Amino acid sequence: MSHPNDPTLRSFIDIDPASNFPIQNLPYGVFSAKDGLVPRVGVAIGDYVLDLCELDQDGRLDVGELGVFAAPSLNRFMALGPKVWSRTRARISKLLRHDNPDLRDNDELRRRALVPIKDAKLYLPIAVAGYTDFYSSKEHATNVGAMFRDRTNPLLPNWLHIPIGYNGRASTVVVSGTTVRRPRGQLKPPREELPSFGPCKRLDFELEMGVVVGQPSPMGEMLTEQQAEEMIFGFVLLNDWSARDIQQWEYVPLGPFQAKAFATSISPWIVTREALEPFRVHGPAQEPTPLSYLRQAGANNYDIVLDVGLRTPRMNEPQNICRTNFKYMYWSSVQQLVHHASSGCAMNVGDLLGSGTISGPEESERGSLLEISWNGTAAIELPGGEKRTFLEDGDSLTMRGWCQGNGFRVGFGEVEGTIVPAL
Amino acid sequence: MSHPNDPTLRSFIDIDPASNFPIQNLPYGVFSAKDGLVPRVGVAIGDYVLDLCELDQDGRLDVGELGVFAAPSLNRFMALGPKVWSRTRARISKLLRHDNPDLRDNDELRRRALVPIKDAKLYLPIAVAGYTDFYSSKEHATNVGAMFRDRTNPLLPNWLHIPIGYNGRASTVVVSGTTVRRPRGQLKPPREELPSFGPCKRLDFELEMGVVVGQPSPMGEMLTEQQAEEMIFGFVLLNDWSARDIQQWEYVPLGPFQAKAFATSISPWIVTREALEPFRVHGPAQEPTPLSYLRQAGANNYDIVLDVGLRTPRMNEPQNICRTNFKYMYWSSVQQLVHHASSGCAMNVGDLLGSGTISGPEESERGSLLEISWNGTAAIELPGGEKRTFLEDGDSLTMRGWCQGNGFRVGFGEVEGTIVPAL
Repeated sequence: MSHPNDPTLRSFIDIDPASNFPIQNLPYGVFSAKDGLVPRVGVAIGDYVLDLCELDQDGRLDVGELGVFAAPSLNRFMALGPKVWSRTRARISKLLRHDNPDLRDNDELRRRALVPIKDAKLYLPIAVAGYTDFYSSKEHATNVGAMFRDRTNPLLPNWLHIPIGYNGRASTVVVSGTTVRRPRGQLKPPREELPSFGPCKRLDFELEMGVVVGQPSPMGEMLTEQQAEEMIFGFVLLNDWSARDIQQWEYVPLGPFQAKAFATSISPWIVTREALEPFRVHGPAQEPTPLSYLRQAGANNYDIVLDVGLRTPRMNEPQNICRTNFKYMYWSSVQQLVHHASSGCAMNVGDLLGSGTISGPEESERGSLLEISWNGTAAIELPGGEKRTFLEDGDSLTMRGWCQGNGFRVGFGEVEGTIVPAL
Repeated sequence: MSHPNDPTLRSFIDIDPASNFPIQNLPYGVFSAKDGLVPRVGVAIGDYVLDLCELDQDGRLDVGELGVFAAPSLNRFMALGPKVWSRTRARISKLLRHDNPDLRDNDELRRRALVPIKDAKLYLPIAVAGYTDFYSSKEHATNVGAMFRDRTNPLLPNWLHIPIGYNGRASTVVVSGTTVRRPRGQLKPPREELPSFGPCKRLDFELEMGVVVGQPSPMGEMLTEQQAEEMIFGFVLLNDWSARDIQQWEYVPLGPFQAKAFATSISPWIVTREALEPFRVHGPAQEPTPLSYLRQAGANNYDIVLDVGLRTPRMNEPQNICRTNFKYMYWSSVQQLVHHASSGCAMNVGDLLGSGTISGPEESERGSLLEISWNGTAAIELPGGEKRTFLEDGDSLTMRGWCQGNGFRVGFGEVEGTIVPAL
């Protein structure tokens, strides 16, 4: 039997070569159909969602535990571990093949199990146990350091040794399509003597990927590279919305707090680690060599094309404002996870690790408005003559990402958020 | 009927005046009895745990939902809201009164519902949704600023305007009595050029109180002072274990991460906000006046005596190394919670907010070894000639706290942790 990643596989479902969801992808999400069923687990295939609840009730998945897919999050399925993840993906792949009649020719099961994606409501796919945000793009850290500290020596001394990260706020991780209310907070512009409280004036996005942790690790223990690798269930697109003015005033000495607490948006489909395997690449050379607990030998990154579109209320189509790639990230997701557990910090099923803003070496590859507008000094010009340094009310921001195969795309879909005015 | 806080109330259970758990307290916890029952909710009374599961099955509590106390955490009970909290406490108080025969003279129910506290195993009382740690003692912030920044101007400019806080790691919040493994991490002493990875050499405690949030607040909305007040279910003692050397190297620019991620210990009994009412006091004057969203008129703090004992493996009894009071805290718990939600950050049932290290104006009132040993320069002398700047393997650290009433103590019990060697 072919491996689910076999690029020659075809499904009996017609799939456009530009679709993000060919049979080689099979990302997991949580959805409900229009007729009011409760949220349940599904897999995206072309223009359809495959209802795993129905397949499981029909005895087609056999994950060894009942009701795992009749759940409003993937956490129970993830808890079953990587062998079950892999076996389930293989079974789903087989069921969807063009040459397998089991589902193809079973009209009754097809009617029950295939929901047009346009009729599905998509939910946050995981119950977020903890949300951690890293800072692992050297280009991003260099841009920020050059802006706020020292142009000639922009990286702090620890940056090349530690995958720097901080704990974020899990309670406001939301799914694509959720509106984002402009936060209020304490602002103290440099020329003012005292802070005031009001709506954020420098509202930004951060283009990131999120790692979904699918297995726990015990308190008091460290992880090997391989253990960390096997705990990763998959990846999503992540927008780490940021209030730059709130951040600037609050962040010393304990880091960002309310500046990042109001919203973090993720894409609804989790692309599995396994589906990304064919797109593995080496990350940038790490010099100085990391300490031994962080060392990795093989290809530790993925070639994922990323882009960002901005649409103001006056525009019909989003304008592309960034095109970059996940492969630029200096610290890998595995290194982040190994470091996260290195003090003995227990990891949980449903932990979400943001990669940090993904910027590339070129100006067109900057993953935040802070960098694109160089701290508000260089406005973007949009079609119709509008300009932007930071986000305004009504602006919609869309991130997309995909791996380009030969004739197909293993894609993440998109994560979108529209800004609504402060209360 | 008397209010449960009435200082003249007596129980039919004999209670020592030095007990932390008189009828005026009635703190909630999660316990199991020796005979192997699964964890359930109870209330401490003198030397007993009152099994709320048994009382509820007997129809004595009537909280409007079944099985709330047959749960391994207080989250379901907390979700019922402050009116139910208050009514339930009144019912429990009434059942325990010396002049009420309902439980007193019901031998069968007493046998089922009263478990000697020495036979009970105590658990983490809440499922921790999110853990946030503040930095709200002016004396502590001043000591740290004087040590590491500027003796003459130790407070950062934002400190007097913002209850500074950061997101901590919820997955390693543990109950009193759990051993704490010395963390490993990246260390770069000032005289070394490169970091190395190894066991923390500057392991510290931080004496804190923890607020247990018992009600949620919606994403995108702020809280008034009164809303925040009513969301607070109760308080615990909290030890925010800290690896000072890991922290020193990692914390710029995004704050503490692995230095605080390995363990946070809390006391097993949650003293309700209502039980603390008689001990309300005004906090320190706030100058400059806080921004209006943070302003409070009334007495916003509590008079809670706190002490810390250190016992090395060679000692039989702990030696007191700190005696301070919660009333010194500059920012109140309500101000912390209002600020936490001010950007629109959703709060959840089971959120835990650490107060920050509680130091007082005197040298004997310093709430961390960092301050007590003044960054390792002044060792504590212990009975038997031992010295300590930071914690060594085998050391046991115990925090206690209580409000002194007239002839009784509304106490928190203790939070203890013993250091075990790094792996």
